[in-house]
Amino acid sequence: MSRTVWEKRFQGREAVPVLERFNASISADAFLFEHEVRASSAYAQGLRAAGALGEEEFTSILAGLAAVEARDRDAASLGRFEDVHTAVELLLVEEIGEAGKKLHTGRSRNEQVVTDERLFLKEEIPALIDSAAAVQRALVTLAERAPDVVMPGYTHLQRGQPILFAHYILSFFWAVERGKERLRDALRRIDVLPLGSGALAGSSVALDRDGLAALLGFSGVSENSIDAVGDRSFILETLFALTLLLLDLSRLAEDFVVFSTAEFGFLDLDPAVATSSSLMPQKKNPDIFELLRAAPGRMFGHLCRLFLVLKGLPSSYNKDLQEDKDPLQRGVEDARSALAAAAAALRRVAPRADRMGAAVTPDMFATDLVDLLVEKGVSFREAHGTVASAIRAAEEKGRSIASFTKTEWTAVHPLLECIPEHFFEPAASVRRKKTAGSTHPDMVAIQLEKSRAILRKTGP
Amino acid sequence: MSRTVWEKRFQGREAVPVLERFNASISADAFLFEHEVRASSAYAQGLRAAGALGEEEFTSILAGLAAVEARDRDAASLGRFEDVHTAVELLLVEEIGEAGKKLHTGRSRNEQVVTDERLFLKEEIPALIDSAAAVQRALVTLAERAPDVVMPGYTHLQRGQPILFAHYILSFFWAVERGKERLRDALRRIDVLPLGSGALAGSSVALDRDGLAALLGFSGVSENSIDAVGDRSFILETLFALTLLLLDLSRLAEDFVVFSTAEFGFLDLDPAVATSSSLMPQKKNPDIFELLRAAPGRMFGHLCRLFLVLKGLPSSYNKDLQEDKDPLQRGVEDARSALAAAAAALRRVAPRADRMGAAVTPDMFATDLVDLLVEKGVSFREAHGTVASAIRAAEEKGRSIASFTKTEWTAVHPLLECIPEHFFEPAASVRRKKTAGSTHPDMVAIQLEKSRAILRKTGP
Amino acid sequence: MSRTVWEKRFQGREAVPVLERFNASISADAFLFEHEVRASSAYAQGLRAAGALGEEEFTSILAGLAAVEARDRDAASLGRFEDVHTAVELLLVEEIGEAGKKLHTGRSRNEQVVTDERLFLKEEIPALIDSAAAVQRALVTLAERAPDVVMPGYTHLQRGQPILFAHYILSFFWAVERGKERLRDALRRIDVLPLGSGALAGSSVALDRDGLAALLGFSGVSENSIDAVGDRSFILETLFALTLLLLDLSRLAEDFVVFSTAEFGFLDLDPAVATSSSLMPQKKNPDIFELLRAAPGRMFGHLCRLFLVLKGLPSSYNKDLQEDKDPLQRGVEDARSALAAAAAALRRVAPRADRMGAAVTPDMFATDLVDLLVEKGVSFREAHGTVASAIRAAEEKGRSIASFTKTEWTAVHPLLECIPEHFFEPAASVRRKKTAGSTHPDMVAIQLEKSRAILRKTGP
Amino acid sequence: MSRTVWEKRFQGREAVPVLERFNASISADAFLFEHEVRASSAYAQGLRAAGALGEEEFTSILAGLAAVEARDRDAASLGRFEDVHTAVELLLVEEIGEAGKKLHTGRSRNEQVVTDERLFLKEEIPALIDSAAAVQRALVTLAERAPDVVMPGYTHLQRGQPILFAHYILSFFWAVERGKERLRDALRRIDVLPLGSGALAGSSVALDRDGLAALLGFSGVSENSIDAVGDRSFILETLFALTLLLLDLSRLAEDFVVFSTAEFGFLDLDPAVATSSSLMPQKKNPDIFELLRAAPGRMFGHLCRLFLVLKGLPSSYNKDLQEDKDPLQRGVEDARSALAAAAAALRRVAPRADRMGAAVTPDMFATDLVDLLVEKGVSFREAHGTVASAIRAAEEKGRSIASFTKTEWTAVHPLLECIPEHFFEPAASVRRKKTAGSTHPDMVAIQLEKSRAILRKTGP
Repeated sequence: MSRTVWEKRFQGREAVPVLERFNASISADAFLFEHEVRASSAYAQGLRAAGALGEEEFTSILAGLAAVEARDRDAASLGRFEDVHTAVELLLVEEIGEAGKKLHTGRSRNEQVVTDERLFLKEEIPALIDSAAAVQRALVTLAERAPDVVMPGYTHLQRGQPILFAHYILSFFWAVERGKERLRDALRRIDVLPLGSGALAGSSVALDRDGLAALLGFSGVSENSIDAVGDRSFILETLFALTLLLLDLSRLAEDFVVFSTAEFGFLDLDPAVATSSSLMPQKKNPDIFELLRAAPGRMFGHLCRLFLVLKGLPSSYNKDLQEDKDPLQRGVEDARSALAAAAAALRRVAPRADRMGAAVTPDMFATDLVDLLVEKGVSFREAHGTVASAIRAAEEKGRSIASFTKTEWTAVHPLLECIPEHFFEPAASVRRKKTAGSTHPDMVAIQLEKSRAILRKTGP
Repeated sequence: MSRTVWEKRFQGREAVPVLERFNASISADAFLFEHEVRASSAYAQGLRAAGALGEEEFTSILAGLAAVEARDRDAASLGRFEDVHTAVELLLVEEIGEAGKKLHTGRSRNEQVVTDERLFLKEEIPALIDSAAAVQRALVTLAERAPDVVMPGYTHLQRGQPILFAHYILSFFWAVERGKERLRDALRRIDVLPLGSGALAGSSVALDRDGLAALLGFSGVSENSIDAVGDRSFILETLFALTLLLLDLSRLAEDFVVFSTAEFGFLDLDPAVATSSSLMPQKKNPDIFELLRAAPGRMFGHLCRLFLVLKGLPSSYNKDLQEDKDPLQRGVEDARSALAAAAAALRRVAPRADRMGAAVTPDMFATDLVDLLVEKGVSFREAHGTVASAIRAAEEKGRSIASFTKTEWTAVHPLLECIPEHFFEPAASVRRKKTAGSTHPDMVAIQLEKSRAILRKTGP
Repeated sequence: MSRTVWEKRFQGREAVPVLERFNASISADAFLFEHEVRASSAYAQGLRAAGALGEEEFTSILAGLAAVEARDRDAASLGRFEDVHTAVELLLVEEIGEAGKKLHTGRSRNEQVVTDERLFLKEEIPALIDSAAAVQRALVTLAERAPDVVMPGYTHLQRGQPILFAHYILSFFWAVERGKERLRDALRRIDVLPLGSGALAGSSVALDRDGLAALLGFSGVSENSIDAVGDRSFILETLFALTLLLLDLSRLAEDFVVFSTAEFGFLDLDPAVATSSSLMPQKKNPDIFELLRAAPGRMFGHLCRLFLVLKGLPSSYNKDLQEDKDPLQRGVEDARSALAAAAAALRRVAPRADRMGAAVTPDMFATDLVDLLVEKGVSFREAHGTVASAIRAAEEKGRSIASFTKTEWTAVHPLLECIPEHFFEPAASVRRKKTAGSTHPDMVAIQLEKSRAILRKTGP
Repeated sequence: MSRTVWEKRFQGREAVPVLERFNASISADAFLFEHEVRASSAYAQGLRAAGALGEEEFTSILAGLAAVEARDRDAASLGRFEDVHTAVELLLVEEIGEAGKKLHTGRSRNEQVVTDERLFLKEEIPALIDSAAAVQRALVTLAERAPDVVMPGYTHLQRGQPILFAHYILSFFWAVERGKERLRDALRRIDVLPLGSGALAGSSVALDRDGLAALLGFSGVSENSIDAVGDRSFILETLFALTLLLLDLSRLAEDFVVFSTAEFGFLDLDPAVATSSSLMPQKKNPDIFELLRAAPGRMFGHLCRLFLVLKGLPSSYNKDLQEDKDPLQRGVEDARSALAAAAAALRRVAPRADRMGAAVTPDMFATDLVDLLVEKGVSFREAHGTVASAIRAAEEKGRSIASFTKTEWTAVHPLLECIPEHFFEPAASVRRKKTAGSTHPDMVAIQLEKSRAILRKTGP
């Protein structure tokens, strides 16, 4: 039977393995061990300041906690305790005896667990933001490698207008940037200390909660003890931000899987991001991008799981909340792993300028032709219809508009008699775009500079 | 067959009703009509500034758009168009003829739709924040109505420690406050103008995008045209913030349903928040709170729907994105309706001090007894075990610890010989809590003052 | 204030519009009107048989219900009632007076609503199965149109082995067939009459429930009255089966979107399944298939919504269950619409044999080369490595293995000296497959025959 | 770098740990080791029958596979391989050398993995059905323990009508029974052998697939090789059935948490299903039932995760499908653990007849009073209104209708002058219900007998 701190409450309690296993949280919360020790040390300091611990007891507890932290912490050694809080308290008593029994004065596991979780996220979120920045850095590097390459821009996966490959790649930079912002926003709400909230009513010890917050590096303290012990919205919010970040990257992954087909052939993949087949020796499969496409699945699973648990739950603490540990730990791990893979994979991809260029076919200049007519005074919708009819007619004859003769163009519209030289050149088309944020090389250069500036701010 | 702006592209296109209906977006996007007109007016101004429209054309378009806006907009009149953008453009041409055909110069529906959606949310989110503030106001009023009432504080739905009813009610204030903050954070990312992004490559018209942003009340412009037309994360983020807000309120609702049972009897419900039964005449069912408990369901449905649509979608615009309209419109409506119901219902609930007081039973003072022993020098864990044993012994005899004689207490622990008078009074217990954010009446008063200050800042 | 059947329970009940609207279910359950009338007629017959209604009363009620059913049922006329059950009862009283007040004897809305919902699904599920069969029929027709066309078979979206287009198309037939089976399984559990369960305890009228079941076309009756009124798993199960069916079709849709790109060019789309662009005149976008790719989103939203509502709900009836109507009605509608669009779209797609054939490149015969070596006695893994090395070597030289000379093949492996003539022909490769269910033309013919047999069984 | 079977395909492939870890599936699929060995043995037999393996080779492979199965299979020993298929093949070659390289002849990991998964579920689903039957058995035993106990039946968590505790408990029996049926339905679709489908096109070896199916205990073979390797709907269906089963049990759990409150006090919980508090010594928290309330969360997470992964995935095999392993393995484990805990917990709960009886208050007989009036000829709706008014009047005076004098009853309605003796006795009320499936003791006895018969059929 796992060891608890409340065993005196029940006499002759039967050990039912199937229930013990179902109930025990130690396998799910052991990852918070260091945070539990850290929070316990601060709490001891708080108790001393409030006069609830003598100097000697305090010193003993601190040393004891250090010894506890230094112990082996494998599954075997921790598995005998009900949870991580019980483990640290009872190990402390094993280390220092009687004084250890004072650590829990006025404290509840209900507040400890959220304190630990918040400490955990205060460490992990900045690390995840760094991982996201590494993805951005890889995107910028990829964009910089091929500043002049023109590729087809797709909507509906149909060729639309010519764009710069660098512009395309940078489009994901901003999605990731929003992801980082969302994580920072979540962090603001995480950065609030619940300690001092007791089981739900507050503590009978006159703890200086602001002092505790300072000790543990929190910017503020929670305003209501019931809310403090029952709230898990900060975990949902973190999981959401991470799911959304990976969801955005799943779109990049889908593009890259499509661009890696023989039919598109736009990307050269390093073998490190591919695998082959056990049966078909020619295969070079873009496994890493397929897995990145699937990656939001895990996060979404964590998110939905916690949503279901929290719906309609009575307020304050309920045991159901134990089910937040696994999504929290795995959520952070899964996101970190996917972001690291994304960055590493992006560094191993190269655009094939030849294939991209070849795919910029004449029909993609249809909008340019409309613009040409508009410049010459035709109304937009009229011009659009004119070019559409020409395209349709060419299509019906199985021809490309690029093969149209001057006479044929004139027949389409008299104002098309003189189509400027180099009109059908990809590089010319991208230069016709004029707005900020467009694919015009000058605009892309500005965008690239902004991206670099953002990364400089974030750190190396 | 619904009218389109691209009919010249296909010849003899067959009208297949089942496909037309499946494809048409007008039923889902008609709610954006006014935003489409507003954005079109600004766009006309942008075209004029860029020299793409003459003064006269511009004046005509503006007047035409005003006329279009004034028209009947029932399902019948709009249903003949493919979508809201087509409707406005073609109605404009109906109004003013040729000049109307110039409005779309250099513009794409891909950018229009997200411009409209962002305009919509820039209006709706502040309104939703106000609705959330109304819930907070109702909570504060409810807390103020019964400042001294003590009730059992529950964890695991088991009686834990005495708390103030006002403290309990205010616990939800902070959850709603976080919900408001999340909406504000989302709004920052929404407040970015995509117009000028064209279909995906930017516009061939030299639009002053900052000027357009100013005209439409946006704080900034999007940085990448591909990202601008393909991004829907701002809708997911809004839906998430609303789902989480209602999820937090579902916990209040669950509490209230439980507290309204005959067995708890803690709340008096006004008939306006209840219904009776078609069969059982005595019934008074807390329908509104049951529906509030269910309310995050709808929002979660909208959220999950859009998640599924976006996963693995190629970047930039795809038709799949049309599926964002329904979750957006309904999501905002459903949240507004639930928040309004929550505020109205909270104003029609009264605590029953007698029932709450009667439920504060002696076993709830067990922690106070532990504290008493700790004050007298017993270590916390020792004291906890002592009281636990006493509780267990009483329970086994079918007795309450409140009935213990002095001799019996002394037997439990010699230091319990003299239990202070009034020790088992609820009001005394809440005053024993000392931390900021606790249920101590002074702390609750501070909390209440902070709540009022927040509401004052938010406006009337 | 909406009209109720329990207004005598509360005096001076305040009409709060925001609460009335939030509470009223008539807008969500009016679609069950006919089922409510039908179930009420059967119930009247049950009451008469049990002696609770006289012959004359019974006749009057039946005529009254017929009159009620014949009335206008627009939003305006029904909107004044609390729900569909109230509407039918009170309209009946309007029609026939006093006798109408007897219809509710021993009956509860808790049992009526699930009776109506089950009646609804007993009609709709067979219709949905027919819609799915129409999709299968379209698939079979498409497969039959091009029995000999060979295309690349993809795994990881990389070219794997040559397959018949018909084989590819039929792969979806079986997915849809499983979807139909799941709907049939759900129907078995739906086909159980709850009527006679009362509010939750059963009825005080000695109703012959088996007789009622026979009247309403149910195969059996529910076994426990509490379970009967509180269970909604049959709706979840229906929604799940429909979501999964559309999820499987979203994979077909993704394929078709990819196959419709300029780069693949495998499909000719009829303009009826495509749209063009407001800006780019050349565009022909595969809108219907993009919307089909997105279609499981809606269904998944309905499913997740109801999951959240039901989680942790007290057993028996709770008002939260009202939230099942919208997912039920919309779920059925959305699925029907998507299936109809899928069938119509599939009938408007044609394979481009030329493009498919051209895409069957020599590297796709790598497995055939391995098989060749295996036939000559080389172990499989050895042979696989040999061919893999040859592919790699060719790739490094930028060559195709199709250009290898006899000498070069011999260098790869002596046993490859004599590669049979026609070895690199697609039609030869598919004939090398030998297993049942494989792409060998004979096997595909068998598969096609099985498909037709299944459809013949299903009906026209 | 992890060992693969395709290393000859790439030269000098860089080992990038972060990508290797992200890509390797061995940690997720090692649980299929035994199934892989079993399927491989059958496959060897299939190869021999098809003449692709000599007798000696076959014998050697069989012995080798037995040796492989007997090896240590800890993380360390398997972790060096890419996946479980690679592990078994390469370990076999380690064991028996050259002959081992023949096992993969005409085989693909794409078909192996689904063969293994189906074998796994063919074992696990019957075991899960047994676990569900154990829950049913515990329910039946609990119902049998207290056949005559009457309790309040609740709707909206408000007291409705008296019911038998046994009837209440049995209501969950039928929910679990449906859960078992759904699992059986899923099993029918799982029981189909994919082996022989090759990578996607079928196998070049003339395998007797029906023979293979017989060897491995499958009832049939898949009809289309592309469908066979790409389909994962059978996993979604299993996860859905399990989620729904636990969702139904979450409603029991919610009831039990509420019934275990001090306020209800309906249940005696054995300490084995409860825990106490680290701070509040009196606490006895119903932890197991809280965790059961949360239990569908995990399953729902697995389900949603796989839904997201599959949406819009190209057909046939894609690497994304690797993400099905974790939900499959954990889903089965989590469900098994929750079902076992539910059965064990139900065996440790006892109803408190005294508290339940005391909660059957006079207002719960309101429907009986309506029935009384109806029997005497008053129309139902009239009678309902009359009793409703009486209840309201009593409520306004703060009285119970049980205290009404004969005169007062006559004032309510002349026909209520003589209320039969024992009218307000719970046992009398349940006997007034007459329908099959109702709470009448005779009907509950029939229900109990049906339940036992079902369990007898299922086995011990």
